[in-house]
Amino acid sequence: MDRYAKAGVNLKLAHRVKARLPQLLRRAARPEVVGNVGAFGGLFRASFPGFRDPVLVASMDGVGTKLRVAVEMNRHDTVGQDLVNHCCNDIAVMGAEPLFFLDYIGTGKLEKRVFDAVIAGLAGACAEAGVALLGGETAQMPGLYAPGDYDLVGTIIGVVDRNRILDGSEVKPGDVVIGLASTGLHTNGFSLAREILFKRLKLRVTSRLRELGGLPIGDLLLAVHRNYHPLLSRLRKKRIVIHAAAHITGGGFDENIPRALPSRCAIRIRRCAWETPPLFGFLQRQGGISENEMYRVFNMGIGMTIIAPRVSAGPIRQAAARLKIESFEIGRVVLGRPSVVFE
Amino acid sequence: MDRYAKAGVNLKLAHRVKARLPQLLRRAARPEVVGNVGAFGGLFRASFPGFRDPVLVASMDGVGTKLRVAVEMNRHDTVGQDLVNHCCNDIAVMGAEPLFFLDYIGTGKLEKRVFDAVIAGLAGACAEAGVALLGGETAQMPGLYAPGDYDLVGTIIGVVDRNRILDGSEVKPGDVVIGLASTGLHTNGFSLAREILFKRLKLRVTSRLRELGGLPIGDLLLAVHRNYHPLLSRLRKKRIVIHAAAHITGGGFDENIPRALPSRCAIRIRRCAWETPPLFGFLQRQGGISENEMYRVFNMGIGMTIIAPRVSAGPIRQAAARLKIESFEIGRVVLGRPSVVFE
Repeated sequence: MDRYAKAGVNLKLAHRVKARLPQLLRRAARPEVVGNVGAFGGLFRASFPGFRDPVLVASMDGVGTKLRVAVEMNRHDTVGQDLVNHCCNDIAVMGAEPLFFLDYIGTGKLEKRVFDAVIAGLAGACAEAGVALLGGETAQMPGLYAPGDYDLVGTIIGVVDRNRILDGSEVKPGDVVIGLASTGLHTNGFSLAREILFKRLKLRVTSRLRELGGLPIGDLLLAVHRNYHPLLSRLRKKRIVIHAAAHITGGGFDENIPRALPSRCAIRIRRCAWETPPLFGFLQRQGGISENEMYRVFNMGIGMTIIAPRVSAGPIRQAAARLKIESFEIGRVVLGRPSVVFE
Repeated sequence: MDRYAKAGVNLKLAHRVKARLPQLLRRAARPEVVGNVGAFGGLFRASFPGFRDPVLVASMDGVGTKLRVAVEMNRHDTVGQDLVNHCCNDIAVMGAEPLFFLDYIGTGKLEKRVFDAVIAGLAGACAEAGVALLGGETAQMPGLYAPGDYDLVGTIIGVVDRNRILDGSEVKPGDVVIGLASTGLHTNGFSLAREILFKRLKLRVTSRLRELGGLPIGDLLLAVHRNYHPLLSRLRKKRIVIHAAAHITGGGFDENIPRALPSRCAIRIRRCAWETPPLFGFLQRQGGISENEMYRVFNMGIGMTIIAPRVSAGPIRQAAARLKIESFEIGRVVLGRPSVVFE
């Protein structure tokens, strides 16, 4: 049963966080938000100055079993950031500017401290991304979730001009593929990684391995999913031409990159073009996973790919460097059916 | 981990349902949906002809532990309808027309048959409500959900003209309160109802009680949440003036009706104005619950309330009758602080 007191959205959000957080929530607002008039839903003005034929872009996603690591680490301020950033990326690859975000927390019984940390992470990431945190729902469902467990779901809505939707239709043989560095596993591959690390190797989240830099494994796993929207937005503003972008999430390279390829184009990726972070190699060796499967399950150090004409490669990499995102020229577009071929 | 193959939204949805269901999905579309160009998000044109100052209205919600009853009944085609209708109601009370819907299914491991039934319910309800099913996500999270269990979350986006947002500001003493009949518990109070029925009384979902009409209790509990949006839409089209509406969900009368009351108005409700369906009385007696608590937890047979000038009462009730929704004049607005007083 949802015993959650449904007050007005702003009021509700205010009630949901500690007294020290209202400034964070205020930052996670935008001028388009119509405040305090409503109660059952959040309100956002649908006026998009500068857009000729605005199209809303919507995506809904979760954090996956990265949540289990957060619970085991008892650190709950990062998963909200993961979720917001993941959602931003999902619509940024279509050329969209994010507008607003809603969250859902499903739980059995959640401590206020945990809840506050999750919301603080969400609100902070929304503020950072320039996205309004428009509403949220918290459902108490004893019996469905074990005590202390929770699921975290987000919906993002953005806008793109219809003739600027990044649909990959202009991708051509000869285009280059730029890979943007990830911060770690981001939010996929966690069920497999947890099985290898915690079941097979019987490690704990506090275990430190020299070959992984000596940090607690839990810290490595909880590294926050990177938001690439600021880079894509910057490329648009600077009129640097790109033809497609792909968010490397569940399904890895094989399933995500072809989503933005036209029918006669394939991608050749040079695996040696970038150094895969040690965590991926460790998981591969300890899990006895084939090279090909690794690239289907994990991001392998590349959180987003951009396909662009060769002339854009330099400017894209310079823009990435300014935002402190490492980038690599990892491949090129060739004739073929939409697929990824590794060299 | 999200191993979910992220194909294009339409493709993805098509993959998610049985072969016999594509026509249902096609019905759950709208002309504004920009088809098949995107992959990572759903696209919906933000053109709202007839709206002077369009405002998007967004709400995110779940089904609560009604899901547990669905699992115990092994009937999964109704919870999707509950969710879509619940979401429609949440934005309809603000005066909005629903546009599109996204769903999230969190699960450990879900049988295809169950999954198909859930999606069929969602798609059917979207089609019926005239809402586009724009996208969805299914996350496999073993360890978080028990086998066979799942959580179901929805986001709805609608639109309302800014000067027609139903914010309750025009509610006046002397206005009447119309109650619209619910179909049952809708989607709240389930944790308490399940505790009474299945823990305390040790009944099963298949148990039949003569005082509850002899139907299996599971059937009574799974009765689909009613969508009142068609009625509110009809009232708008017929220019029948209303001042506020409230969706009676978690928090019951006490928390939901005051959300749309101005600062100097209270509501007096005559409990004898309608006959509470037998299930509520049964739960109250067997659970030893006070009358006041019942109205804070359950809808007590009233799924939505409308506050309107007295002159609108007749036309509202006639419009409801045409849509086969029973209605009652259950109270009136008086001077006071925003609250519900029972007579």
